[in-house]
Amino acid sequence: MSDVLGALRRAVGNGAVLTGADAAPWSQDWTGAYHWTPLCVVRPASTAEVSAVMKVAFDARMPVVPVSGNTGLAGGTFAEGAIMLSLDRMNRVREIRPEARIAVVEAGVILANLHEAALAKGLVFPLTFGARGSSMVGGFLSTNAGGSNVLRYGNTRDLVLGIEVVMADGQVMNLMSELHKDNSGLNLKHLMVGAEGTLGVITQAVLKLVPRPAATATAMVAVASLDDALSLLNALQMATGGAVEAFEYMPQAYLEVYARHNPQSRPPFDTEHAHCIMVEIAATAPRDATPGPYGEVPLVGYLEEVLGDMLESGRVLDAVVAQNEAQRAEIWERREAAGSLLVSRNPMVNNDIAVPLDKVSVFLDRMNLRLAVLDPQAELMLVSHLGDGNVHYTVWPGNPDPVHCDAIMEAVEEEALALGGSFSAEHGIGVTKRPSMARRKDKVAVSAMKAIKAALDPRGILNPGKVFPD
Amino acid sequence: MSDVLGALRRAVGNGAVLTGADAAPWSQDWTGAYHWTPLCVVRPASTAEVSAVMKVAFDARMPVVPVSGNTGLAGGTFAEGAIMLSLDRMNRVREIRPEARIAVVEAGVILANLHEAALAKGLVFPLTFGARGSSMVGGFLSTNAGGSNVLRYGNTRDLVLGIEVVMADGQVMNLMSELHKDNSGLNLKHLMVGAEGTLGVITQAVLKLVPRPAATATAMVAVASLDDALSLLNALQMATGGAVEAFEYMPQAYLEVYARHNPQSRPPFDTEHAHCIMVEIAATAPRDATPGPYGEVPLVGYLEEVLGDMLESGRVLDAVVAQNEAQRAEIWERREAAGSLLVSRNPMVNNDIAVPLDKVSVFLDRMNLRLAVLDPQAELMLVSHLGDGNVHYTVWPGNPDPVHCDAIMEAVEEEALALGGSFSAEHGIGVTKRPSMARRKDKVAVSAMKAIKAALDPRGILNPGKVFPD
Repeated sequence: MSDVLGALRRAVGNGAVLTGADAAPWSQDWTGAYHWTPLCVVRPASTAEVSAVMKVAFDARMPVVPVSGNTGLAGGTFAEGAIMLSLDRMNRVREIRPEARIAVVEAGVILANLHEAALAKGLVFPLTFGARGSSMVGGFLSTNAGGSNVLRYGNTRDLVLGIEVVMADGQVMNLMSELHKDNSGLNLKHLMVGAEGTLGVITQAVLKLVPRPAATATAMVAVASLDDALSLLNALQMATGGAVEAFEYMPQAYLEVYARHNPQSRPPFDTEHAHCIMVEIAATAPRDATPGPYGEVPLVGYLEEVLGDMLESGRVLDAVVAQNEAQRAEIWERREAAGSLLVSRNPMVNNDIAVPLDKVSVFLDRMNLRLAVLDPQAELMLVSHLGDGNVHYTVWPGNPDPVHCDAIMEAVEEEALALGGSFSAEHGIGVTKRPSMARRKDKVAVSAMKAIKAALDPRGILNPGKVFPD
Repeated sequence: MSDVLGALRRAVGNGAVLTGADAAPWSQDWTGAYHWTPLCVVRPASTAEVSAVMKVAFDARMPVVPVSGNTGLAGGTFAEGAIMLSLDRMNRVREIRPEARIAVVEAGVILANLHEAALAKGLVFPLTFGARGSSMVGGFLSTNAGGSNVLRYGNTRDLVLGIEVVMADGQVMNLMSELHKDNSGLNLKHLMVGAEGTLGVITQAVLKLVPRPAATATAMVAVASLDDALSLLNALQMATGGAVEAFEYMPQAYLEVYARHNPQSRPPFDTEHAHCIMVEIAATAPRDATPGPYGEVPLVGYLEEVLGDMLESGRVLDAVVAQNEAQRAEIWERREAAGSLLVSRNPMVNNDIAVPLDKVSVFLDRMNLRLAVLDPQAELMLVSHLGDGNVHYTVWPGNPDPVHCDAIMEAVEEEALALGGSFSAEHGIGVTKRPSMARRKDKVAVSAMKAIKAALDPRGILNPGKVFPD
């Protein structure tokens, strides 16, 4: 071990190899559900140093766990006895090229910093979620993160043009393309994105940017049912030609948890409603964004018209359109707190499922009935990216027994898969969902994944014990 | 061999195994540049039969070349002595689900038939290109085909939600998801799409559909330069909020070739212009599509306004907006003939490169100069999906000598890569671009691709001699 530490120190410098108390900040993840003691934390400052670290690990057959913002929700950075390879010092936004609408970034760039750098050039990197102040490029690429704007802009994978990857043996793979069309062989980019650090270490990326909206309209809406929520989504997409950026479901139970943790906050409506939706639409075209003679923004008009029609027909029960940036921020804050609320209490049964959009309501009806039987004391921390069928069906169980918790997880999976869903929509597999991979994923697919893992990481040193079931 | 044929006949029935003259239609591809004699052509009617065929081939260690529409442009179906596995009998559109906006199709469905089936339900499958009357699902997925609507809707890969794949050993991998978010392990879907049949045989797919535009505006535009063309594209995207569906460049030389092959056709303008653009914008929102009191469609107004401004400033030299469906078809026909014009003459040096959008003009300037020196007799068959930086720089050489042809190809690649481009944008590698893979692709990436190939097709029977360089 001291040999390995010595070799790592020679590779990246003494100050960049942390052990003992210095490594403590890296000894658990954001959820607080996993704790470990790494052999050391190595903080390379360049691709060449990452490569040198991987060569040391490869020669010594030592496990390496890549980590960037450490905000994952599936235990993907659990690193007992491993070398933790932190990308946090590789934090440069190397280029923002407005004419090409791209950003070239290192893996340690914090998402919020990328947002700011893009905005300074009049552009937007549209990926966003609650942990954006900590989450880094390497992590959100390696987990193919989702979030609240997937409906319009896709997952992380849809926003990546090129990547640079350090392979298990330290070789550097250069796929740093800026192109929108590139059919030169197997698509290794999309294989590395979402591989959770099990096939290589992403060190740089070329990311797509989009024009900054010239107008935005945001509202909290209370609907009579989830079916009415879908009618609202369809009506808005129709009226705006697909301008819905976020369509987030928050049931009353979620709003109660939020209010409990944020006693200074105001409730969205004077009366309680079982089903609340946060909706945001945005537009770049002058015809939608240019204020009229009385300062009225056409885009806001489209939203108000749809809401007005649906209020009249009783499918919308109440609605508040944000009148300024502060009101908009208040609406977003309520939704984006979900991540920190989630990790505020342990144990939790953390479920991140997806079903086809029109099956969300069936899923919830069935699962809520089932949970009431399985665990009458359970508290539900439910929030959903309804616009893409992704439901975070998190349960704080009445009983912390792991077997009981697993039974809840199994039930959730079962109901999701019965509706053509997935047991992991956007959080990935990590450690948490390995049992689900074993029991739910197509067996031929699992074999193919393992064959690829063995081919690209023959010594099994890259983030071992994650993703692939035994 | 007779053992293999016997086993194949038992697997799919006597009538579905063709040899000799019966197999002749499968003994060359669309380009006419490749000819071969397959051992036989097998035409399974179901996934189970495809599986049975693969098991026979796996046991016998016989090469299998999957083929569907056979309209590829890179020799990807070259099959000397191989079992050709034709998907053409698996031609059912199994489901169109308007509420979920998906199509579930077998691999042998012809693209034009899918277009029709979707349209019948008020939806559009947005992938389109000249060979749409022959090209089939299996082929356009396996090559990750591009075409004329990539600018708005992405490549084939962006339009696929799920696939079913028969692996080298005959096992069936079920990835038939309908979900927009699914992070359950390595992304095998995106690996199989674009793998040109080297990793498995795609037998079914779940494809995304989009709403049918409520209004379309199409024009031929003559611009003063390619820089002016990009200004036009940006102005249109700005004015319409990103509604440009197609932005296709046709230089005068292309229009001359087209006129020669279509003597009955009318030229786009009364006078000749060096740079012509076909542009189409489309919209679904009522505010853009609903005709006004005089029958004027707002969307057409946006186009005319942008063109008017640029005519005034001299950057647009002339423009004709289609007034009806017949005029629109005439404009599209002129562009979509490119494929058949391309294969009308052999030999050709078929180049399908991409460069960043703002580098197309530099690329053409440099390459045209270089070609004039390399081959003063060469004729250029140039057409470009300018909106995504993809240039089909096809050369009919003055001298058919393969070494000379390869020198032209190398020069084209060199100029493209010097600008951060790719040597293969949308046609794939097949046989034609294997030398380019060997000399241009990142070496670490090529090693990783070969390792994956060996892992998933350990006997090397799937479309051997394609994609991967020696």
